[in-house]
Amino acid sequence: MASIDLATRLARTTLELCRIPSPITQEGPIADHVERWALQHFPREEVFRVGHTLLLGKLEDARPTVALIGHLDTVPAHPSDAGREARIEGERVFGLGASDMKGGLAVMMALAEDLRRDTLPVNLAFLFYEREEGAYAESGLIPLYEKRPDLAKVRFGIAMEPTDSVVQVGCVGSMQVTVRFTGRSAHSARPWQGENAIHKAGPFLAELLGRQRVEVNVAGFPFYEVINATLAKGGRARNVIPEAFELNLNYRFAPGKSIEQAKADVHALVAGRAEVEFTDASPSGPVVAGNPLFQKLMALTGLPAASKQAWTDVARFGEWGVDAINFGPGETAQAHQANESAPIAPLADAYEKLAAFLKGAS
Amino acid sequence: MASIDLATRLARTTLELCRIPSPITQEGPIADHVERWALQHFPREEVFRVGHTLLLGKLEDARPTVALIGHLDTVPAHPSDAGREARIEGERVFGLGASDMKGGLAVMMALAEDLRRDTLPVNLAFLFYEREEGAYAESGLIPLYEKRPDLAKVRFGIAMEPTDSVVQVGCVGSMQVTVRFTGRSAHSARPWQGENAIHKAGPFLAELLGRQRVEVNVAGFPFYEVINATLAKGGRARNVIPEAFELNLNYRFAPGKSIEQAKADVHALVAGRAEVEFTDASPSGPVVAGNPLFQKLMALTGLPAASKQAWTDVARFGEWGVDAINFGPGETAQAHQANESAPIAPLADAYEKLAAFLKGAS
Repeated sequence: MASIDLATRLARTTLELCRIPSPITQEGPIADHVERWALQHFPREEVFRVGHTLLLGKLEDARPTVALIGHLDTVPAHPSDAGREARIEGERVFGLGASDMKGGLAVMMALAEDLRRDTLPVNLAFLFYEREEGAYAESGLIPLYEKRPDLAKVRFGIAMEPTDSVVQVGCVGSMQVTVRFTGRSAHSARPWQGENAIHKAGPFLAELLGRQRVEVNVAGFPFYEVINATLAKGGRARNVIPEAFELNLNYRFAPGKSIEQAKADVHALVAGRAEVEFTDASPSGPVVAGNPLFQKLMALTGLPAASKQAWTDVARFGEWGVDAINFGPGETAQAHQANESAPIAPLADAYEKLAAFLKGAS
Repeated sequence: MASIDLATRLARTTLELCRIPSPITQEGPIADHVERWALQHFPREEVFRVGHTLLLGKLEDARPTVALIGHLDTVPAHPSDAGREARIEGERVFGLGASDMKGGLAVMMALAEDLRRDTLPVNLAFLFYEREEGAYAESGLIPLYEKRPDLAKVRFGIAMEPTDSVVQVGCVGSMQVTVRFTGRSAHSARPWQGENAIHKAGPFLAELLGRQRVEVNVAGFPFYEVINATLAKGGRARNVIPEAFELNLNYRFAPGKSIEQAKADVHALVAGRAEVEFTDASPSGPVVAGNPLFQKLMALTGLPAASKQAWTDVARFGEWGVDAINFGPGETAQAHQANESAPIAPLADAYEKLAAFLKGAS
């Protein structure tokens, strides 16, 4: 059990970070804040900034490098949060980003302050980045990696996304697809003179309705491949047979499947019945069960492990060849919610678990 | 064959009417114009105005009353028509409303000018009205009928809608229905935690796709009952299982079917799978094949007759107990189109056919 003092300190830091608004694309002030803090705890040459993304520590070291990783941005504020102040109430910190993932950032900062990095069995680095909550191609990790390809030297990354204090391995890939059914317009009293694009989508949607999730077991972890229509729009007037009907299809695919394979799955499903346009694709993240630092983390902490049935940047680290997992003190159910909050006790628990791992990972 | 002079005169009147813009709700100037004209051809006591709707003639008469009926409004101008002047080119009049239905109004006005109404075998009245191109409940015919319930004395109405110079009997009813499928939102990587409202509509849309038009024969005229989804929208984000999916359903039902029966058809089709909200309903129009004036019209003109597979105000006249049919010189294919036009020759043909009927209908 973590000490009350540690929990209080982490809650205060989380609150302080929540009080610096950082919706995606507006990460300047929080990056400045973290940079000022970093210069008090790291030599100047170990504080590297690109845009509003910071890499703290050095990557050249005889010891294997562990990176703690956190994004600085939040989703845009929920309209119903207007006028709500970040605050501590009872056993929780309330504020936009509390769970996703300013609590995780607070744990990272406390570990950076407290641990004697030079005496650890591992080399420890920290990564604070911008633009996680947007498109895959606009992440702050991209310009960072262009300037610092030596990031590939990291042996083990811990993305401190909210995971309900469970280690979550890998991640499903995510693909967005526009599926466009086309017909021919006509007066709606004489539909036989046209072709109804909305009706044409019926059999396809009925197939999606009947489709079961597909379980894919990767190194003992179950992932679920699912395909869903998430947006639909069609038609142009009440009295006109619709000539067009568009669906946005979101496909989540298991680790081990490439984006090209996933695209082939979508084409097989649509089977020529509609136009297919791939609008976004994020790769799946590998399951790194064989990584020795992962095995030490599990052994030293006794944390439960599960598969990550969502997308996170462990997929991007995977693209760089860096083994990474997800572990953070926030609650997944709080992410992107109005009046977001995070429980205080898990902040200290995460700190203690990570400290035990970093000190013991010899 | 109509004389060149008559055709030229009718084309000029059509052009003059097209030059007075009268998109729905802006019928004031054209109503003023027609009223000024009416006062030159009708005694003052036979010019009755409510809003921008005019009833010309008297309804008390020993002879059976025939009413020629035309709406003054057009649909709003098509954006691509900006800057286009109404004009005559070759054998056609170009201008918003040329076919729907200022050509018909021109024929009405010429007949009013030329016929000796006191010597006809029938009593002849004229009805020019506003707000046809909008909602059933907002038509200019409603306040007129409130002031002049003696309209029910009309024995035969001819709605001069564009019909390609064919007599079109009856009309299908039209009903607009919102059909709302509901589910439960969830993260799109974990759809089993929710329920996809778009997928739920699949079997229903597949049924609509497979559904054939239903032919209903009324007094020898075939009508087709058809149900179509004309608008669709659902979902709220690419990564969220949609909790709602709405269709606008348009149902066209045959003469003889009541609105209540049509609603029951929709409920039977949806069969409890979605919420049903009726947003608009226009009754069907009776087929008046037994009306003696209709039979005289057909006999005296030799015009072809067909069923009206669309909705017109003959349905409203039917509600008043007034037998009416559709017959006009405009082209149905031109109605509501950009760069609308009307052929000139049918204007004179319609005039001649109607004059022959009105003079011969003893």
